[in-house]
Amino acid sequence: MSEITLRKAKTIIRATLSKGKELGLKPLSVVVLDAGGHVKAFEREDTASPGRFAIAQGKAYGAVMLGMAGTAQMMRAEQQAYFMAAVNGVYGGQVVPVPGGILMRDKKGAVIGAVGVTGDTSDNDAKAGLAGIEAAGLSGEA
Amino acid sequence: MSEITLRKAKTIIRATLSKGKELGLKPLSVVVLDAGGHVKAFEREDTASPGRFAIAQGKAYGAVMLGMAGTAQMMRAEQQAYFMAAVNGVYGGQVVPVPGGILMRDKKGAVIGAVGVTGDTSDNDAKAGLAGIEAAGLSGEA
Amino acid sequence: MSEITLRKAKTIIRATLSKGKELGLKPLSVVVLDAGGHVKAFEREDTASPGRFAIAQGKAYGAVMLGMAGTAQMMRAEQQAYFMAAVNGVYGGQVVPVPGGILMRDKKGAVIGAVGVTGDTSDNDAKAGLAGIEAAGLSGEA
Amino acid sequence: MSEITLRKAKTIIRATLSKGKELGLKPLSVVVLDAGGHVKAFEREDTASPGRFAIAQGKAYGAVMLGMAGTAQMMRAEQQAYFMAAVNGVYGGQVVPVPGGILMRDKKGAVIGAVGVTGDTSDNDAKAGLAGIEAAGLSGEA
Repeated sequence: MSEITLRKAKTIIRATLSKGKELGLKPLSVVVLDAGGHVKAFEREDTASPGRFAIAQGKAYGAVMLGMAGTAQMMRAEQQAYFMAAVNGVYGGQVVPVPGGILMRDKKGAVIGAVGVTGDTSDNDAKAGLAGIEAAGLSGEA
Repeated sequence: MSEITLRKAKTIIRATLSKGKELGLKPLSVVVLDAGGHVKAFEREDTASPGRFAIAQGKAYGAVMLGMAGTAQMMRAEQQAYFMAAVNGVYGGQVVPVPGGILMRDKKGAVIGAVGVTGDTSDNDAKAGLAGIEAAGLSGEA
Repeated sequence: MSEITLRKAKTIIRATLSKGKELGLKPLSVVVLDAGGHVKAFEREDTASPGRFAIAQGKAYGAVMLGMAGTAQMMRAEQQAYFMAAVNGVYGGQVVPVPGGILMRDKKGAVIGAVGVTGDTSDNDAKAGLAGIEAAGLSGEA
Repeated sequence: MSEITLRKAKTIIRATLSKGKELGLKPLSVVVLDAGGHVKAFEREDTASPGRFAIAQGKAYGAVMLGMAGTAQMMRAEQQAYFMAAVNGVYGGQVVPVPGGILMRDKKGAVIGAVGVTGDTSDNDAKAGLAGIEAAGLSGEA
């Protein structure tokens, strides 16, 4: 399995923020987690609200731990709210099940981490994050 | 009351994983808890997502602690979501109330523990776990 | 980086328990964590006390998260008790800083996970775990 | 009060990591918190252990929340361990009271955030972080 290097993590963040500016999005915050769900890098743009780290991490953390991207988590939460609530219980309340939590896969399809983006609408967050992941030569699943 | 031995626990896990392969399920994770709700054995198949221990344990833990298998817990959660949420409060957020949490009974009908299976759909998880329990000469209630 | 496969994890557990029997140790419990600190496999021998999963995991979890084996953690705890207490705070109280938490390294020296052993004295726990890791062709740091 | 911009936070991290390399330190992890104790930016170097975010944050968080840098926190912990333990209680266990938690001040002396560095000895962590803060034209108190 490939690992997410700090160099790649920084490329992802830079390209995500750049895509956000190009699309005219609100200030974004972006986290990159490794394959074990641990923080590799994070940046919060100026004027973004102070609590954005936890939201970004929560989107990415659930994706890694469940192997399920934010959109799929949201569908499950809408169908079976008590299930996602219970999942959050066993993960210490760290899961934010909406788009903007994006799985990263290497060329063989193995999950090597996740990106969490927050600041604009969940769908725009996901769009920016996907652009960031592609800029690093990886494949994203939002 | 019979006790779940490590030998039986390993038989259950091996037969559950084998049933999963036979049915073409996604990689599974399987936990066996004793009659006190404590972990006896666990295995997570390669390429399963990293957070699977907590989900498997949550399915089995609720089953033992409430004496109620996953399917019954799910029905209760659908009828009275606040009740299962409250149950989770008193059990420290460790309960995942869906199929795949399976009670194990000995020949006299006494609960001697539970099996938790996760990785595919909840119903398929339960099917594989039941096969595992039967392979150990015990009776399962999904 | 190599990954710890389920096959290797089971080899480690089997060889650790076998070493424990050879040395006449009390019943052991053994967990194998991956490089992200997530449970891959666990077994608790018959007649071991029910709470052994959490102790085994706590020994191995601190080793992975800090990149520091149990013996080094214990020395730090003896020199600076408040530091290890604080570390445990940020890791949610999941760290047990004594021997029996053993780092596993691949041939290039990269940490690919940790083994946690509990049941006898901490030093005997570590001895059995090291034998288990060697049986899987890996290098252990206790 | 000045605010810590993302640009400055990135300068601090880059210069801290660069100082670490110059001094031959182990791989470092560096967090920058704002004046409210909230994460602005973070980077973890390759091969650093996975749990480094929480340690870095814990060093910086205590510094901001108490207005007391890591060295002063450590002295207090050595004199009155129960006091720092209690502080950790009220702050949710998020404080790691050792050097490497560095207050940042603007030209008027106002605290505008803190930097947390971890990976080598606490004193070396602090040395690298101070260099990072100076590179951003700010004044550090370790």
